[in-house]
Amino acid sequence: MHCSNSNNSIYHSFIHRKGVREPMKIICSKSDLLTGVNIVLKAVPVKTTMTVLECILIDTSDGVIKLTATDMDMGIETVIEGDIIEGGHIALNAKLFSEIVRKLPDSQVTLETDESCKALITCEKAKFNIAGRSGDDFAALPVVEKTNAYSISQFSLKEIIRQTIFSTADNDANPIFSGELFEFSDNTLKVVALDGQRIAIRKIELKDSFESARVIVPGKTLSEVARILPGEIDKDVNMYITPLHMLFEFENTIVVTRLIEGEYFQVERMISSDYSSKAQVNKRNLQDCIERASLLVRESDRRPTIMGISEGVMELSMQSQIGTMNEEIDISREGKDIEIGFNPRFMLDVLRVIDDEEISIYLVNPRSPFSIRSDDGTYTYVILPISFNSGI
Amino acid sequence: MHCSNSNNSIYHSFIHRKGVREPMKIICSKSDLLTGVNIVLKAVPVKTTMTVLECILIDTSDGVIKLTATDMDMGIETVIEGDIIEGGHIALNAKLFSEIVRKLPDSQVTLETDESCKALITCEKAKFNIAGRSGDDFAALPVVEKTNAYSISQFSLKEIIRQTIFSTADNDANPIFSGELFEFSDNTLKVVALDGQRIAIRKIELKDSFESARVIVPGKTLSEVARILPGEIDKDVNMYITPLHMLFEFENTIVVTRLIEGEYFQVERMISSDYSSKAQVNKRNLQDCIERASLLVRESDRRPTIMGISEGVMELSMQSQIGTMNEEIDISREGKDIEIGFNPRFMLDVLRVIDDEEISIYLVNPRSPFSIRSDDGTYTYVILPISFNSGI
Repeated sequence: MHCSNSNNSIYHSFIHRKGVREPMKIICSKSDLLTGVNIVLKAVPVKTTMTVLECILIDTSDGVIKLTATDMDMGIETVIEGDIIEGGHIALNAKLFSEIVRKLPDSQVTLETDESCKALITCEKAKFNIAGRSGDDFAALPVVEKTNAYSISQFSLKEIIRQTIFSTADNDANPIFSGELFEFSDNTLKVVALDGQRIAIRKIELKDSFESARVIVPGKTLSEVARILPGEIDKDVNMYITPLHMLFEFENTIVVTRLIEGEYFQVERMISSDYSSKAQVNKRNLQDCIERASLLVRESDRRPTIMGISEGVMELSMQSQIGTMNEEIDISREGKDIEIGFNPRFMLDVLRVIDDEEISIYLVNPRSPFSIRSDDGTYTYVILPISFNSGI
Repeated sequence: MHCSNSNNSIYHSFIHRKGVREPMKIICSKSDLLTGVNIVLKAVPVKTTMTVLECILIDTSDGVIKLTATDMDMGIETVIEGDIIEGGHIALNAKLFSEIVRKLPDSQVTLETDESCKALITCEKAKFNIAGRSGDDFAALPVVEKTNAYSISQFSLKEIIRQTIFSTADNDANPIFSGELFEFSDNTLKVVALDGQRIAIRKIELKDSFESARVIVPGKTLSEVARILPGEIDKDVNMYITPLHMLFEFENTIVVTRLIEGEYFQVERMISSDYSSKAQVNKRNLQDCIERASLLVRESDRRPTIMGISEGVMELSMQSQIGTMNEEIDISREGKDIEIGFNPRFMLDVLRVIDDEEISIYLVNPRSPFSIRSDDGTYTYVILPISFNSGI
């Protein structure tokens, strides 16, 4: 079957198992089932017109108990421990099924289905009967061949996502803003996110060298991957890349996502290493101070916080309809005095994901982007300033 | 001044301090200020047409730093430690002021006001300027004379509210449903809440004997009192009662509330001590089982959970559009077999606030209220059944 919209969806095939509505019966522990359900639940769309996507598919056709959910952009599949008494598959409403499993006693759970796709869930003396669907129309995840694995520790992947994801834009006309660039070259992974007003770049050294690759991964997928990942330092995530898809594999779980098409921005060209002022400041002090300043900004407001840098001191001030605030912080400075305005929330997003006690801010002039970056290139954050001479 | 609506509002007087817009200046610790602000914040109405009620009044006219907020039904006043450099008063927007205080460094806070009611908040190097109001139009709390104190430990009051408050009705045509009866006689306090479909009664023995009193306290006030109360076992709350108002006093805080007028129901007449069946059941098992049953009920649904009691076993079942469940629990039974339907949420509300491991359910017939009560009269919960023969 030729599927013309394969570029927009991860699905090139559907399950067509004719006459497989024989009864299924599986037994597994409540805790294994709950863990599995909670993992795939992250792929169930909140709103959808395809009601089958509101379901979790439970399938034993590969000889294991596999749970699958998908929103057509991203699919999650996880295998749980358990006994297959009779093979088969069923799709159950994800919300209801997860609520039931959560509330079952901590014991063995039996799931049985009949020819009419009714499911009987038994655990100790509790019995639930709910209606299911055959799952014949459930969208199968695209096959991503596992030839070339890019490996990274769970911890590092979880961290690098957290440290960049805030710079993606949710619903932008340009889909590239909603994704993150994952660039592998030799033994480094560089991740870039940008939304038109700021850039986040993180670089990490990997244990091995890998073939070069450059893909744009949807931010939503990365958020969910970061949420599911246990984040262990000594366990790896393997990533596999095809022209259209990417697969994340860890423990008993795979996440398959479509990739965002297009050419990512040449961020190196956007960032200048020249600066006229450099301020070194205690991160915690700066963060606390900007948090106070941000109290005077309401959601819709685009008023800047103003940062004035002079010899030994940074003055932060904020002026809005609500009130005014100002505060001084001790710093060490190189270069010229400068005054610059910025969105306090953008600055907070950055400061919250930097672990360093002392940070360096590099500024060119009040109209040019300024950056917060580490000497070793681990992180570079760039923020576009807001003009404040005219605005207030 | 004669105030004709004094019955509906706790306010019979307003502050009229002419020419007191002299600058005020106080100094206190951030933590004391924050504790105080968080206490009075509970009385600030979420929605109000009187913008002054969105404020916290800070007043030093009694020689102490007093914070006050009110929604006209309930007022909270708390005194905080600190130095009064210049006496005065000011009303500051509660939301903004509390956010600012929360984010200040953990240090001494100075609050200064000027003739135009601008407030300057300084803490270490942080300075906030926000607009305030004189507070001249701030409603004063009614004076409740502290002649006759009813004392109870903070812990007991907090508990007895938690154990009954769910049986009040929020927005009922009959305001008595929204309050709780507090009945003092000798050395007992009896608290009753009922909403037309259920009754909650708790009795507690007090350390001393008190004059008899019978008042209806708004449920909202009690919720807030329970929230503010530290809940210490060895510290008391003193309550003072007037015909229209009630005052709760603990630590540095007072809560003043209007009372609900009217005659409370004669609940004793509604409850029969006769029964045809008595079931003794493990509370935890029953609660877990009903929690599972409640998964099959959506908000708008009024389908009952059905409880069938026979020799040695209780069968709980639930049938809805979503699915069916049933489960058996071992019990010990006295009397006849019986089957009764009830709202699972009502039953859960009761079970969640009973500490006993084993509980006794007393039933008369499928159409009569059934009760869960302790032998010593500490608690009596009554629930109206739902007919299930016709409904399904």
